[in-house]
Amino acid sequence: MKARVIVTLKSGVLDPQGQAIEGSLTSLGFEGVSAVRQGKVFDVELSTDDESSAREEIDAMCEKLLANTVVEDYAVEIIG
Amino acid sequence: MKARVIVTLKSGVLDPQGQAIEGSLTSLGFEGVSAVRQGKVFDVELSTDDESSAREEIDAMCEKLLANTVVEDYAVEIIG
Repeated sequence: MKARVIVTLKSGVLDPQGQAIEGSLTSLGFEGVSAVRQGKVFDVELSTDDESSAREEIDAMCEKLLANTVVEDYAVEIIG
Repeated sequence: MKARVIVTLKSGVLDPQGQAIEGSLTSLGFEGVSAVRQGKVFDVELSTDDESSAREEIDAMCEKLLANTVVEDYAVEIIG
């Protein structure tokens, strides 16, 4: 079973990397960009075939390692 | 209009960061993890309200800045 975890900064948390990308896009001529936020994706392959136990395990991974839940949110999708 | 761009390494491209995360997960006791690949997410806010022109603009941004299309794939979702 394959899961995709998307980790994004909580709203209100400053994102200097996103701001730098926004600046670069604007200077490349993309003028309609009003904000960019950067995050991370993890595609995790699990040996279990049970979706609910996969979700539980992925949640535990996010809490322990993949996300810093003080400043980041995460979302889990089962993709295969 | 808000778009989410997900940039992932093409299959076959080595991902040492993903392997390090896999190792960390295993040493934390998550034994069912068989592979981890890491990627990037960009949430881009655009001033246009037209979905097809937004997609065109985002594609151009990916080709020029957000993704290295030699080794990375990207996927675009309109999220709002």
